[in-house]
Amino acid sequence: MNKKISEKAVSRMTLYHCILTDYINKNIETISSPQIASLLNIDDSQVRKDISFLNNSGKCRVGYLVKELKAAIEKTLGFTKPKNAIIIGAGNLGMALAKYDNFTNYGLNVLALFDTDATKIGTIVNGKKIYSIKEFKKLAQQMKSDMAILTVPREAAQDTALMIVNAKIKYIWNFSPTVLDLPKDVQVWNENLMGNFLQFAYKMQD
Amino acid sequence: MNKKISEKAVSRMTLYHCILTDYINKNIETISSPQIASLLNIDDSQVRKDISFLNNSGKCRVGYLVKELKAAIEKTLGFTKPKNAIIIGAGNLGMALAKYDNFTNYGLNVLALFDTDATKIGTIVNGKKIYSIKEFKKLAQQMKSDMAILTVPREAAQDTALMIVNAKIKYIWNFSPTVLDLPKDVQVWNENLMGNFLQFAYKMQD
Repeated sequence: MNKKISEKAVSRMTLYHCILTDYINKNIETISSPQIASLLNIDDSQVRKDISFLNNSGKCRVGYLVKELKAAIEKTLGFTKPKNAIIIGAGNLGMALAKYDNFTNYGLNVLALFDTDATKIGTIVNGKKIYSIKEFKKLAQQMKSDMAILTVPREAAQDTALMIVNAKIKYIWNFSPTVLDLPKDVQVWNENLMGNFLQFAYKMQD
Repeated sequence: MNKKISEKAVSRMTLYHCILTDYINKNIETISSPQIASLLNIDDSQVRKDISFLNNSGKCRVGYLVKELKAAIEKTLGFTKPKNAIIIGAGNLGMALAKYDNFTNYGLNVLALFDTDATKIGTIVNGKKIYSIKEFKKLAQQMKSDMAILTVPREAAQDTALMIVNAKIKYIWNFSPTVLDLPKDVQVWNENLMGNFLQFAYKMQD
């Protein structure tokens, strides 16, 4: 039950989940491990090994039942337990994330946004209100947010992250292109879009 | 010179690069491997090993010269050679990426955007024009784009990706939450924001 799954396996499972969602949208009921493997350019045995970690009851003659396998991934990765988040920084990226309805399907509820720009404060984006950053500490505690999504400019990221930590939020999804210096009990997920581009660009040299 | 660096090491180097950029902004001239290691919660020996793969001349008594180390990473990861890209899908995320000036510093030039929405076509975002998707094949070849950044909705992603491949673009940075089924000579980098969230959410269960 509580077998720990490696970060790479979790990452692959989220891609399997993508594929299964596409199959459901196309009304396809079964899928085989070679089909999944081929779409991801990985080894069939890898797919079978990953799936063996799941509590998956949906086996069939050709491989797996799509809906059951999807549910097993959801249960194992824990996204049937919803998480509440607030977005700090209502710039282009913060707004894009606030409008991204797909999050809700995966158990991420965006409660509100925070910004310093007086012209934005009080407006509503996709049903979520933009508050002044000055109200952050008070509201973050009232809202019982599990995590903060940080989309402020690089220069403001470190100070804003300290403010988040002061409000007792222990999980930060950091989209600012900077490495935060925070207490070790705070978990940071660095999205690092530029870094991802650079990894891709590195492959383009081949 | 052409030693191949692992994907994980490339990923760490992009984070070192983030830290070095911050140090330069703060006018700090030197950095040590334990300083880098502590910010990233990784092992000092790992940092030193990664840096040993670089052609880095900037060693000093306390560790490394910040500017020289940054330049060595840039040279090794090849982002001193600019790449041209076009964004397909001028929705919230596409617009956010078009407005993200940081890309230029890392050698990514966004040339133009493409969309199906008649009200957007012809408008300019951050100096880049939004064209009709109908003109894509002709313009993509004229513009000599190295890569396409795909930010269309999930339902449109596969067909749009095939259109990109038809226009002879071999690199796709895919932000759509779907796995693309494409010829094996096309390189796809799946950004998979939801997947990243799910990995983070999985850690939150600990």
